[in-house]
Amino acid sequence: AIIVYRLPWTWRCSKPLMKFIHAGLNTIAMILAIVSMVAVFDFHNARNIPNMYSLHSWIGLTAVIFYSLQLFLGFAIFLLPFAPVSLRAALMPIHVYSGLTIFATVIATALLGITEKLIFSLKSPAYSASPPEANFVNCLGLLLVVFGALILWMASRDHWKRPPEQNAKLLQPVGGTPEGTEAESTMTDGSNADKSDLRISSEAARKQNLKLDEAGQRSTM
Amino acid sequence: AIIVYRLPWTWRCSKPLMKFIHAGLNTIAMILAIVSMVAVFDFHNARNIPNMYSLHSWIGLTAVIFYSLQLFLGFAIFLLPFAPVSLRAALMPIHVYSGLTIFATVIATALLGITEKLIFSLKSPAYSASPPEANFVNCLGLLLVVFGALILWMASRDHWKRPPEQNAKLLQPVGGTPEGTEAESTMTDGSNADKSDLRISSEAARKQNLKLDEAGQRSTM
Repeated sequence: AIIVYRLPWTWRCSKPLMKFIHAGLNTIAMILAIVSMVAVFDFHNARNIPNMYSLHSWIGLTAVIFYSLQLFLGFAIFLLPFAPVSLRAALMPIHVYSGLTIFATVIATALLGITEKLIFSLKSPAYSASPPEANFVNCLGLLLVVFGALILWMASRDHWKRPPEQNAKLLQPVGGTPEGTEAESTMTDGSNADKSDLRISSEAARKQNLKLDEAGQRSTM
Repeated sequence: AIIVYRLPWTWRCSKPLMKFIHAGLNTIAMILAIVSMVAVFDFHNARNIPNMYSLHSWIGLTAVIFYSLQLFLGFAIFLLPFAPVSLRAALMPIHVYSGLTIFATVIATALLGITEKLIFSLKSPAYSASPPEANFVNCLGLLLVVFGALILWMASRDHWKRPPEQNAKLLQPVGGTPEGTEAESTMTDGSNADKSDLRISSEAARKQNLKLDEAGQRSTM
């Protein structure tokens, strides 16, 4: 859901469609998170294991609370058509920062859960004897860190950012700040120095987008 | 060390001085990390505890390896005067991303270490019985997450970024890309919509810097 605006082939799709995909994927993730939490509490109660005692549970619950807040505010401000454009533009950097921070916190929570499970489940041989399961699951944990780092890289690169809506800018004298500022106000490096092939191809895609916009073939809001 | 360029009162200090402080603080942290790792291995060997079996140790060692690489490359490219400005500008976004990602990974490693220690040390009453020590240390863990989130916020805000060296830009036709691009190529939100007081005061600080630069009172390196 985080990198859905960062896939160059989606830049031809309309902004509302992409917003619905972003919101939809996050809603599915939220539903799965709630189902998992119910399962955890049921499992704990059935086995007479205390609830909410571990750092994993504290940080995980904090992340879920902030995630539901993020989802609700994102829905109310960026998806529903009521919020003024100035409010959207002001809140977008906070929305992006919160999303990425919640994502990193969820990765950390998963690593804590993995560690707990390995310590509690591996008894003979113990976790400290490094049985194959332990090494295998440690590798999964490392891959989770690599996955998190990759997503943060993709989300924070300037040249992977969805180009702003150009025809919205044409409407600026009539409608105020363009909707496109939302797409621009994400975490980027702000550098023009990266002259890689990717940059060049993304510039080409931006120009292509501009053409589409000029032809008025793209919805803007 | 990460937010050393983000403190507005340091914007009057010269860039080389700030670089030395950034490098110096990171070097101290690296030395402390090495001392801690030696202490851990000695402690494990003295108590006959196996080394490097846990996810905490795997992720922690990965972070320390990347951190030493970051420190070495940062020293060679950004502190020593040999690297061309174009290379510095191209590598700065990677340096910033790596630094923040290593920082987040270190926070995650600390949380894993805390969880392990609580599980292994609390026996009667056990961790799962939520004794006061468990709740206290869980709170420390949550504060560590809050600390990490705050540092990431400060490091990624546009208006807390050190303004570029203006007199370096004046030298551009002679010396190529200005050194100031380094300061500009950090993770920012790129938004101009945030009209908070902080923004206004930072704008004032930028103008003040500009004046200092025009007076030629600041070293440019």
